[in-house]
Amino acid sequence: MIQPDQYIRSLLRRAPGETVIARGWVKTRRDSKNVHFIQLNDGSSPVDLQIVLEAGAVPPETVASITTGACISAEGELVASPGKGQAVELKARTLCVHGAANPEQYPLQKKKHTLETLREIGHLRPRSNTFGAVFRVRNALAWAIHKFFQERGFVYVHAPLISASDAEGAGQMFQVTTLDIGREPDFTQDFFGQRAYLTVSGQLEAEIFALAFANVYTFGPTFRAENSNTPRHLAEFYMIEPEMAFCDLKDNADLAEAFLKYQVEQILSTSMPDLQFLAKWYEPELLKTLEGLLAGPFERISYTEAIALLQKSGKNFEFPTDWGVDLQSEHERYLTEELFQKPVIVTDYPKEIKAFYMRLNDDGKTVAAMDVLAPRIGEIIGGSQREERYDVLRDRILGHGMTERDYWWYLDLRRFGGVEHAGFGMGFERMLMYLTGMKNIRDVIPFPRTPGNAEF
Amino acid sequence: MIQPDQYIRSLLRRAPGETVIARGWVKTRRDSKNVHFIQLNDGSSPVDLQIVLEAGAVPPETVASITTGACISAEGELVASPGKGQAVELKARTLCVHGAANPEQYPLQKKKHTLETLREIGHLRPRSNTFGAVFRVRNALAWAIHKFFQERGFVYVHAPLISASDAEGAGQMFQVTTLDIGREPDFTQDFFGQRAYLTVSGQLEAEIFALAFANVYTFGPTFRAENSNTPRHLAEFYMIEPEMAFCDLKDNADLAEAFLKYQVEQILSTSMPDLQFLAKWYEPELLKTLEGLLAGPFERISYTEAIALLQKSGKNFEFPTDWGVDLQSEHERYLTEELFQKPVIVTDYPKEIKAFYMRLNDDGKTVAAMDVLAPRIGEIIGGSQREERYDVLRDRILGHGMTERDYWWYLDLRRFGGVEHAGFGMGFERMLMYLTGMKNIRDVIPFPRTPGNAEF
Repeated sequence: MIQPDQYIRSLLRRAPGETVIARGWVKTRRDSKNVHFIQLNDGSSPVDLQIVLEAGAVPPETVASITTGACISAEGELVASPGKGQAVELKARTLCVHGAANPEQYPLQKKKHTLETLREIGHLRPRSNTFGAVFRVRNALAWAIHKFFQERGFVYVHAPLISASDAEGAGQMFQVTTLDIGREPDFTQDFFGQRAYLTVSGQLEAEIFALAFANVYTFGPTFRAENSNTPRHLAEFYMIEPEMAFCDLKDNADLAEAFLKYQVEQILSTSMPDLQFLAKWYEPELLKTLEGLLAGPFERISYTEAIALLQKSGKNFEFPTDWGVDLQSEHERYLTEELFQKPVIVTDYPKEIKAFYMRLNDDGKTVAAMDVLAPRIGEIIGGSQREERYDVLRDRILGHGMTERDYWWYLDLRRFGGVEHAGFGMGFERMLMYLTGMKNIRDVIPFPRTPGNAEF
Repeated sequence: MIQPDQYIRSLLRRAPGETVIARGWVKTRRDSKNVHFIQLNDGSSPVDLQIVLEAGAVPPETVASITTGACISAEGELVASPGKGQAVELKARTLCVHGAANPEQYPLQKKKHTLETLREIGHLRPRSNTFGAVFRVRNALAWAIHKFFQERGFVYVHAPLISASDAEGAGQMFQVTTLDIGREPDFTQDFFGQRAYLTVSGQLEAEIFALAFANVYTFGPTFRAENSNTPRHLAEFYMIEPEMAFCDLKDNADLAEAFLKYQVEQILSTSMPDLQFLAKWYEPELLKTLEGLLAGPFERISYTEAIALLQKSGKNFEFPTDWGVDLQSEHERYLTEELFQKPVIVTDYPKEIKAFYMRLNDDGKTVAAMDVLAPRIGEIIGGSQREERYDVLRDRILGHGMTERDYWWYLDLRRFGGVEHAGFGMGFERMLMYLTGMKNIRDVIPFPRTPGNAEF
């Protein structure tokens, strides 16, 4: 297998004179009179290694099979490259074709494909330049997120995926069953002895762990069965949900800001070649907005202040800006892109438009919620301080038409050793769209699940 | 919120004389004539911080509410502790009770509870000493696994959870649906336009990525709908599945051995206080077997050799040891615990007892499979070199009664730029049982899902 010092990313940094072996997939082959030039990529870098193979060094039928998509290995000496954009190239002594890719049949040819076309060949698109960059950034971001929390002593918790509870009624849920669908249903005979669903959030379970380990986080898949065929919705996606005991809304906002800045810093430092590629092809403003996020403290305003600012903006918004309505995309853009020109944390929303578990403020009208809005992407994080008062929470549960019995263990957390606590959620793919400049969420996840689509 | 230098784990290492604040949950309170002793834990360490509170420093009703399970914070000076087992204790100047825990009602009292009882209170058991230790080790292990692969340049891949393919027919699957169960089923009207299931393995999708990024791994949930109510089965559990291009069975076994040793080394170095607690209460052999795994190279034998060794062992096994049958637990124990007294990698199993995608050996009878067996736990890793030859794979698919159409994209990987590749799977909870000495898999996962049980 390829050892860490054998990745093409590593070979490109080595000094001329070393004998090495390079392995990967052919991007292109170009022939001149005496020599063949092969661009080789192993997925470790957006930059290919150029292989220089002298005419006659391998049989003609071998050369003929070195086409786009073929898997080869080449051994030889690294030499200084006369071309620009690379310090070294590989002068091949031996070359082996492991697997050809018939040019008549291989779908991923040199020409530029649309992202829609690439989605149809989800088993090959990871080999394209675009998806090489996207999935390297995805890996780097997942690692950065774990690092952020581990450095701060947070305990990583796997929230359950299959759940008997309907959570917060946050969205449509998938049912999970081993029953013969179509027969008369008797859910006492189903696998879990009752109806079971795929989770929409790990938050409530994260609260259990925060009230034992103080600082915890989840990072796992969540599901929505909404029939939304838009560039921003997936049926299966990933969420990061930190939850902290002894934490109020101010601490929560501080952590959210530090978390976002850390992710951007890490990706700028680990993934610049990929970001440059993505900026060039997909989002010219990419680096500017990422660096802008780091430029200073985020703005912090209450929902009530936000409404006032929108009302006196002089803008002709499509949606109303009356106190009590939710902020729309156009309002978020005005606040982040025009008025403040930086990320904005909006806090203390009307209780009617937020979830039952958010802590009721002393005004009786608003809850200790927060949304983090960023230029270009809008809402990137949503969170709140949680209602820790037993009686208030019970009233809110009943007021939402739910029962104490559904939430017995969640209420128990307020009866036994409760404390003020808070947390937030960040959609992993949403953040990836922000970091890569990709416009369709299907293009930042390996195998998107959407209505009518569960291929691969 | 608690900052990294404020965890009790950190406070216990500080010098006497510093003024600090400690926050957490009360384990016990003991009263003497002039002073109250409070054992406080915040989930960061198996060792409690002792709080010393002078009688009269807070009102009697506050003292009365400092009972097991109550959430408190205390501010004061760290002083040298006269007691053994701790260098410092906290002499409290002020103390605040955030949330009481009525001793008449709080289920997690000081007395020792059975693991079965604790499972019934999954929302409180993370606060117990045992589950504190288990879930800290779980966190440390998840982090160690990511570190191992990230240090080696592997790309982390999220394999899809919902899948339209029935994979390898590896086990019973859960169906995922938005249909009204009980009505006449029309799966073209279901969310994904067809039947959809929860995945049993991310391997086939990992192969897609290995043939683009060379070295990749998954770490995510997988599901089995088998009605197995045993201490070793869960309906929802986590798997780690690395997959490497340019990799044969020998490289695969090398990586598996390095991976297991790395995990044990890391846990021994990060989690010794937790391991000592678990060894004391649950598995006296724990440290000995963990250190034994690091002692030297694993034994490597072929299945055929293993059968010969079993036959000439002179043992009276319950299950047969004829060539062609699968190894049973008693056989694994003999090889690892009696004969070699160390981990054993068994390779090249009869093709009839292994999956269709494993590479057929030249003998036509065996496949390039491997199982890693360890003393005390048995099989901990299973893997193989994958069949990379199109014609051979197609014949194996048809021979298993499956169709080319079901596996079109998997076959495509052998038509376009294929290469020898290999990988393995490790059950995360299985490894945790090995590392913690816990005997029931329900006790190493936050919220176990088993037949009839999807609570919390």
